[in-house]
Amino acid sequence: MNAARSQRPPPAVDDGEEMTYCVGILVDQGLVMIADTRTNAGVDHIATFRKLSVYERRGERVIAIATSGNLSISQSVVALLNDGFHNPATDEIETLYSVQTITKAAELIGLAVRHVLALHGPVLEEQGINANVNFLVGGQIGEGRLRLFQVYAAGNWIEATVDTPFLQIGEIKYGKPILDRAISHDVGIEDALKIGLISMDSTLQSNLSVGLPVDIAVVPRDRHATSVTYRITDGDEYFRDLRARWSAALRAAHQSIPYPPYPASEAKV
Amino acid sequence: MNAARSQRPPPAVDDGEEMTYCVGILVDQGLVMIADTRTNAGVDHIATFRKLSVYERRGERVIAIATSGNLSISQSVVALLNDGFHNPATDEIETLYSVQTITKAAELIGLAVRHVLALHGPVLEEQGINANVNFLVGGQIGEGRLRLFQVYAAGNWIEATVDTPFLQIGEIKYGKPILDRAISHDVGIEDALKIGLISMDSTLQSNLSVGLPVDIAVVPRDRHATSVTYRITDGDEYFRDLRARWSAALRAAHQSIPYPPYPASEAKV
Repeated sequence: MNAARSQRPPPAVDDGEEMTYCVGILVDQGLVMIADTRTNAGVDHIATFRKLSVYERRGERVIAIATSGNLSISQSVVALLNDGFHNPATDEIETLYSVQTITKAAELIGLAVRHVLALHGPVLEEQGINANVNFLVGGQIGEGRLRLFQVYAAGNWIEATVDTPFLQIGEIKYGKPILDRAISHDVGIEDALKIGLISMDSTLQSNLSVGLPVDIAVVPRDRHATSVTYRITDGDEYFRDLRARWSAALRAAHQSIPYPPYPASEAKV
Repeated sequence: MNAARSQRPPPAVDDGEEMTYCVGILVDQGLVMIADTRTNAGVDHIATFRKLSVYERRGERVIAIATSGNLSISQSVVALLNDGFHNPATDEIETLYSVQTITKAAELIGLAVRHVLALHGPVLEEQGINANVNFLVGGQIGEGRLRLFQVYAAGNWIEATVDTPFLQIGEIKYGKPILDRAISHDVGIEDALKIGLISMDSTLQSNLSVGLPVDIAVVPRDRHATSVTYRITDGDEYFRDLRARWSAALRAAHQSIPYPPYPASEAKV
């Protein structure tokens, strides 16, 4: 279906298919980040890469990063951040352990993305390869608030708010309806994690290129540390049970709705 | 969210946003076609156009067509089909009332799309306007089977099968998970209509540019006539009830799932 549906006329356009799904949910009690791990780098090479990274200095800072898009670009960006990146704004070599605010962390990632895209983007473009990347960056540093950002390939960012408490990157549409309905700033953090996993399940169901394992990180507000970092694999009993319960509940839900009463067309043969 | 999310780096790429959602579901008992009616032709001009058309000669043929994509192109195609289109393959002026099989109807639509795109596509492309269109074509003519096709802008088509009993065009992802879970060839036609409406509801919830009214057509197998053609408007009590029930059932469903048991991270502050 996907291959057929994504067929488009010339000029070639992005078909909107992504190989990743990551969601960040920022609620009153804290932050949840969920990312699948599958990467398809060509038709015969499906591999598992970590798309969720946590930078943590307990009691002082915790930063969680999730990536979607071109794997080579996003890995180069992460490598640059780990090695230290010369920030022209401060004239310092900075890493995610040196930045003083979570906003600066988002900006540093934006600068690193621009730097890597300036190096590799034009050549990839020449070869018709999509160099697009997106990052989710969430966390808390020192006295600052717990915040969640999405950083675009252009290096700019948007921030989750009380009214828009979740941000998604990658293959976002299949898993968006449940978030739209169930997530608000005041849901508990365990609910946020559960609803995020249902959102991931909807994506796994409808896009075969998004797959287990799934990585999760939970960051309670004002603790400056993760409370959960976990990889859900094929054998995970809770996630298997969640998928089965959700599937059964959806079936029961549509079965419980009465049949449409719409009138038959006027003339009958 | 949508405006922010669809931001992409140069080169400009299609952001995958569509202003339409149409679904065709072909089950053992018959065919269901559902289409929204909203069209956004520019930022300050949201209008309602019919995207679902039924060509019916009761007892002999019924053909239902739904369109997505560039409205000017799809309306030109429909006008051409209504006026009669010179089919080079038969050297006849043909309409959807003259073709002898539903496959020929799909092919005629494909030829008409090619013809209109040859006229207008290059100029639209020059102006950076997406001329893409997609059609769903379902129905039954004479002794032939009830069938459902998707016709692409290139004029080629794919057909729904027992294994793939639904086809979607336009903004397809939000409404796909429920179809993936609940539609199979052997569900009843009233279930297919109900599940199709839930799929439409999910799309309405998550994409504001897809909107009511919603047109529906139901074509029972081997009757060569619609059993229902109906427009669901804002005031429709059944659809309002369906949306409320579905929303409540989803809430109950995720609330009934136990909390994740994932272990806390090892060190605690």
